Amino acid sequence: LNSLFDGLPTTVFETMSGLARAHGAINLGQGFPDGREPADLLASAARALTERGNQYPPSRGLPELRAAAAAFYNRFDGLALTAENLVVTSGATEALAAAFLATISPGDEVVVVEPAYDAYRPLIERAGGAARTVALTPPHWRLTADLLETAVTPRTRALVFNNPLNPVGRAFSREEVEAVAAVCLKHDLIAISDEVWERLVYDDCRHVSLSSVAGMFERTLKIGSAGKLFGLTGWKVGLMIGGGALLEAAAKAHQYLTFTTAPNLQAAVAEGLAWPMERFEVQARSLARSRDRLAAALTAEGFQVLPSEATYFLCLDLAASGLSMTAQAFAERAVAEHGVAGIPVSAFMSGPAADGVLRLCFAKPDAMLDQAAERLGQARRAWA
Amino acid sequence: LNSLFDGLPTTVFETMSGLARAHGAINLGQGFPDGREPADLLASAARALTERGNQYPPSRGLPELRAAAAAFYNRFDGLALTAENLVVTSGATEALAAAFLATISPGDEVVVVEPAYDAYRPLIERAGGAARTVALTPPHWRLTADLLETAVTPRTRALVFNNPLNPVGRAFSREEVEAVAAVCLKHDLIAISDEVWERLVYDDCRHVSLSSVAGMFERTLKIGSAGKLFGLTGWKVGLMIGGGALLEAAAKAHQYLTFTTAPNLQAAVAEGLAWPMERFEVQARSLARSRDRLAAALTAEGFQVLPSEATYFLCLDLAASGLSMTAQAFAERAVAEHGVAGIPVSAFMSGPAADGVLRLCFAKPDAMLDQAAERLGQARRAWA
Ligand SMILES: CSCCC(=O)C(=O)O
Ligand SMILES: CSCCC(=O)C(=O)O
Repeated sequence: LNSLFDGLPTTVFETMSGLARAHGAINLGQGFPDGREPADLLASAARALTERGNQYPPSRGLPELRAAAAAFYNRFDGLALTAENLVVTSGATEALAAAFLATISPGDEVVVVEPAYDAYRPLIERAGGAARTVALTPPHWRLTADLLETAVTPRTRALVFNNPLNPVGRAFSREEVEAVAAVCLKHDLIAISDEVWERLVYDDCRHVSLSSVAGMFERTLKIGSAGKLFGLTGWKVGLMIGGGALLEAAAKAHQYLTFTTAPNLQAAVAEGLAWPMERFEVQARSLARSRDRLAAALTAEGFQVLPSEATYFLCLDLAASGLSMTAQAFAERAVAEHGVAGIPVSAFMSGPAADGVLRLCFAKPDAMLDQAAERLGQARRAWA
Repeated sequence: LNSLFDGLPTTVFETMSGLARAHGAINLGQGFPDGREPADLLASAARALTERGNQYPPSRGLPELRAAAAAFYNRFDGLALTAENLVVTSGATEALAAAFLATISPGDEVVVVEPAYDAYRPLIERAGGAARTVALTPPHWRLTADLLETAVTPRTRALVFNNPLNPVGRAFSREEVEAVAAVCLKHDLIAISDEVWERLVYDDCRHVSLSSVAGMFERTLKIGSAGKLFGLTGWKVGLMIGGGALLEAAAKAHQYLTFTTAPNLQAAVAEGLAWPMERFEVQARSLARSRDRLAAALTAEGFQVLPSEATYFLCLDLAASGLSMTAQAFAERAVAEHGVAGIPVSAFMSGPAADGVLRLCFAKPDAMLDQAAERLGQARRAWA
């Protein structure tokens, strides 16, 4: 067997969801919303099963979805895409796999900004590359060109960057995104820009797409997610956005990874991408209210809540909450003893910089958030 | 960019379907059925959208689907599986990708029996391995241990075997499957057994699963396809069947390739796998009738039709039909000039052994088959 996968554990998301089921716990671990599915898209996906056929769509996706996605990104990122700039994948994870397998060769290095999604490293390594990590640090998780430069070597071929950043909920500023671009341009790097949380950005924050920075489009493979855009994480409809030889190579990898994606889900996603701007804003405001509700309840329970500008997540600083345990230990005990699942941010890090930080998903109904906060408060009092 | 994908063409299936659309041709190229979707499974998939949730299912698949698939294979292959022996993937292509990425390391060799599905070689090479091919030859496409032995070296790690065989429609006999097993056992090889056509076997032929041969289960990763079982190729729901460290490693690869698959499609597939045996037989008899109809019509048009025991496909021997052109040339001209798309079997071969053989998909309505035969007859008369 290949030694990479042979030795790997089950992902923390899967493990925690399994523990949540086993203990009947409230699951604020794995990032998925509860009670927010858009009924119009469910109806559209159901209709498409009888109206749109159930055989292989084109490998790069339904023409209507590629066109709708181009229009969507032109609206939001100010790009000038056509359908040719889009490839539909079976989820953002497949898009990441295609991106790494298409760009990395044995000996290449890839700069990874931590906290980092747990799929990046195994995919980079299976492609023959090595991850060179830089770690952002709490509570501000600020990114600078100097920090990125510490990981660049003559073998660096690409950089992978998640903005907004899961697990800590940062929407990077224009300055920070431009710093990433500057490093890519200076060292001639390919950027794999994981922007799946792009429309889940709150308050006065604005998402800045790396693809939209001058000089970056040609060298960037942007990754989007219908699951995240519409709160339908099980649909596994992802997008690759780019051009030229880079997108072409990723599309070739895609044709041998899954070939294509179910047409009824694609048709419904095409419909969703045409929603008026306002509907995405309403969705974001609703998520921001849930974030505020959970943050307030946890603060009242004595937790130190870190700021969250984006994503489904907020984080707790356990040390500042009077707890001298790692988030890993807290998460393992909380799911079993107090019926709440969370994710330790250490699962996104190769070093100890965030060992005391716990991630919680707030995309849940109010009653679930309230009860989770109460249970976590009991845990805190028991262990402080 | 990684040189492998950078240089690869678009698959022949995708290209031919594109040409068929562009020319308004009858598409007997890419393997998908027309007019045969099971209405009960469409209704079930529609219902599941509102009843079964739309968030991440477990990475290895819905428990009910894994249990239904175990029961299905116990019925048909005589195995004694539990749900733990099953992993659901986003199509059989993803299962192949996971299988190769999980088993092959740089320097390993893989025996590939040609004709071979076009994804095998790029996936083997991207995993760091090299394909060693053996070519079966028309019209009988017989497989022997001696033939396989010619491709085995001390570096051989695995063998990939498609039974029933796309594109030529062979259901290998028990003796042939046992010959494959003997070579795997003798040389301690992993078998990647692509059995996606397992229930589309006709007349008195019987499918023999490599996993069911004594000593093989532990070393075999069997791949199944709901798209093929139920004629819903766009659904992209695949299965990996196996056990021990081999399935474990493939499941780890899967969690980083797509993580999981849409729950509504999984729920409908679970329902389908519980169909009574008879319903699969009715489906197979209907396909055999379509095969016979197309074969008879083409024979009447002067073509030499090769026998087909399984799959959606039959093949034409062009030389024996009085045509001195390659199937590649025939296919390119037929789609443009006579409005029928087919696939040259040379697309499945690294050598010239089947350059004069054309594959046609017969899983179509009668009127479409009749018209295709008539048009192909015109082409034959024009070019003979
Ligand atoms: C595919 S499971 C991971 C889901 C997710 O994005 C998260 O929880 O961070
Ligand atoms: C994924 S496109 C290939 C479909 C198929 O199995 C075939 O046409 O051989």
